[in-house]
Amino acid sequence: MTHQDLISQIPAIDRLAADIETMAAFTDPEHPFTRRPFTAFFKQGRQWLREQMAASGLAIELDAAGNLIGRRPGQEDLPPILIGSHTDTVAGGGRFDGVIGVLAGLEIVRCLDELSILLRHPLEIVDFLAEEPTDFGVSTVGSRGMSGNLTAEMLAQTDGRGVTLAEALLDLGGRPADIAAEARLPGDIAAYLEMHIEQGPVLHQRAIPLAAVTGIVGIRRFSVVVEGEANHAGTTPMSLRKDALVAAARFVIDAESIIRAEENAVGTVGYLKVVPNMANVVPGRVELIVEMRSIEPETIDGIGQELQHRAREIAQARGIAISVSRLTDAAPVQADPRLIEIATQACRETAPGALVLPSGAGHDATQIATIAPVGMIFVPSRGGKSHTPKEWTDVADIALGVQALARALLKADVVF
Amino acid sequence: MTHQDLISQIPAIDRLAADIETMAAFTDPEHPFTRRPFTAFFKQGRQWLREQMAASGLAIELDAAGNLIGRRPGQEDLPPILIGSHTDTVAGGGRFDGVIGVLAGLEIVRCLDELSILLRHPLEIVDFLAEEPTDFGVSTVGSRGMSGNLTAEMLAQTDGRGVTLAEALLDLGGRPADIAAEARLPGDIAAYLEMHIEQGPVLHQRAIPLAAVTGIVGIRRFSVVVEGEANHAGTTPMSLRKDALVAAARFVIDAESIIRAEENAVGTVGYLKVVPNMANVVPGRVELIVEMRSIEPETIDGIGQELQHRAREIAQARGIAISVSRLTDAAPVQADPRLIEIATQACRETAPGALVLPSGAGHDATQIATIAPVGMIFVPSRGGKSHTPKEWTDVADIALGVQALARALLKADVVF
Repeated sequence: MTHQDLISQIPAIDRLAADIETMAAFTDPEHPFTRRPFTAFFKQGRQWLREQMAASGLAIELDAAGNLIGRRPGQEDLPPILIGSHTDTVAGGGRFDGVIGVLAGLEIVRCLDELSILLRHPLEIVDFLAEEPTDFGVSTVGSRGMSGNLTAEMLAQTDGRGVTLAEALLDLGGRPADIAAEARLPGDIAAYLEMHIEQGPVLHQRAIPLAAVTGIVGIRRFSVVVEGEANHAGTTPMSLRKDALVAAARFVIDAESIIRAEENAVGTVGYLKVVPNMANVVPGRVELIVEMRSIEPETIDGIGQELQHRAREIAQARGIAISVSRLTDAAPVQADPRLIEIATQACRETAPGALVLPSGAGHDATQIATIAPVGMIFVPSRGGKSHTPKEWTDVADIALGVQALARALLKADVVF
Repeated sequence: MTHQDLISQIPAIDRLAADIETMAAFTDPEHPFTRRPFTAFFKQGRQWLREQMAASGLAIELDAAGNLIGRRPGQEDLPPILIGSHTDTVAGGGRFDGVIGVLAGLEIVRCLDELSILLRHPLEIVDFLAEEPTDFGVSTVGSRGMSGNLTAEMLAQTDGRGVTLAEALLDLGGRPADIAAEARLPGDIAAYLEMHIEQGPVLHQRAIPLAAVTGIVGIRRFSVVVEGEANHAGTTPMSLRKDALVAAARFVIDAESIIRAEENAVGTVGYLKVVPNMANVVPGRVELIVEMRSIEPETIDGIGQELQHRAREIAQARGIAISVSRLTDAAPVQADPRLIEIATQACRETAPGALVLPSGAGHDATQIATIAPVGMIFVPSRGGKSHTPKEWTDVADIALGVQALARALLKADVVF
């Protein structure tokens, strides 16, 4: 039997299910299923995870940036392949976001041991510290640290009690002073693999259990200010109005049309404020934020240009002023082309018809991509729900994800 | 010479201009041109007005509801014709809203005396108390009182300091306990005439100094709640969204089209709130208020039905829920047909091409119309501005308004 033939025996589903249940218990009993980083619940979860890693013979390390790493040796003197994700949650989070990616790595190690498979590359299972937004105003703390993207400014930021991120890291056993020096460099990681819940509705809606991920979409946000003229809603005839809300509504409709016309993009006007916002006053001013997300930089550029063009047309047609300015801009993160191909094959060998999707949300992979080839696999989120106690993924689907992840690992072990 | 021939000598423009300037000085020096009712500035203005009325030989009365009334006898034993408006202002108000209607009455009395014209009807010049919204949550206090529309509940309402409206009235010299008994009944007033600034842009825009008013538009307001589904703005494909804001924007656009198609109506979405109103969340809920105003009840009904119909269509097309419920409903107030005709003739004899318009804002005439025939004349508001220190009407236009008001008075004195 080849290694690939053995993979159909991965994972042990009951063991995987029990691990997920165990980790779900290390959460705030008053706020299910909350395990904020740096808290007692988080430390308890990590302690249990450390014990499981040790029981599987992994060499344990807490790196300078507070990442918990379990290392399995390889046959050759090569840089390691990493499997990682995070065990922290948002407040009012779920049982699957992040956690299952770490437990997948642990389960694969156990199975590789049971199947007596030794990879060419060393394998590291990583629980990255604090992927979710923290009280320090920084997210993906651990993966930023590992990839050299955690700045001194970020480490100096404080939470509501005046504690700095550096101090919180020290308390957890990290070594903030050594983070920069110990950060890994290009070439230090052969490949990074992450399994995660989709956090969107596509897989569940289409009843498909797996997707290979092409990358993490870029996000551009525009601040749009529509300046009309506030007037008495009773005495101002329709023909003499400069109603900022009617113009803004036109922009909202047109923005949706422009974005819908692009196959590989989403976009949203999520924030809109009317001034003065009184029933008896013709709106004088509207402020809104429109964002566009795509894995393709040129698609983001194209939508951005169309939105600006449409804003000018609406302003001209209605004789009012519309200003459009760039608020934020995060470039798309591409998964490594070889790992997209590997993940796609691995998913389709595991579940025929598996999809190939971009990720609409950010992950630890976003940071690691700055220094190493990354690849990701998604499993379904019921109803697309995430960051809520209602977050759900069937254990059968998680098991398929672990199997696909194992397949991708063995393929990457050959290719890299 | 007939009386009508003499009217071209009305008013004495310099005296009228001086009166307007004098009244503008009885305002809060810190907040031009603010003369809130019940304040020292208001009392000073009234004291001066009382002196002018007395100097013109009028019999002075402060009625139970706090209205300052100057009465000139008539030749016959008839109910009086009233000319009235108000001298209170909103906070940050202007020099013309209300005041010029009262001063017009005073100036006409002086001119009638100088021209030795004695009318058939007694004439009462009325400064109605507190036409603008008050801290007690009631507006048109005096005209409500005179017409029997000031309830015990309203009199018991308190301002921010816990003072009741009844107490404030007592302090001013009113007799709250007698208001109901002294309220005038149908037949007690032969006709009511009011000159007012337009508070809208139509006359100024068209460079026409006068309009006869057909009535005061009714206002119907709908509360519209759009229930979509809040979702992650990155992970939710466009095709699986139920974006409440896109649906609401469609409604805003369609509402404007529906209302624009009606010649005799205006309508506005002035209030709109997005929930949760975050740039990275697909809007789950939008609450908005749409209002429609017209002098024709059937036009309001028609627009209301079309809006409800359109809301159902949008909800169906987008698979979301839109509820429409009636929030407030004030019926239109029709001016008396004879007084519309009289005011129109009077305006056109004074200024060829004078318009015939509805009033988009409420006035003391709204209350008096419940017990007597009312007619109104508008003079221009520069740029349509009102309720601001920038409020402006040229004294030459006010003079034309006074002359037209005098013409209307003499015509009504014959007809009623």
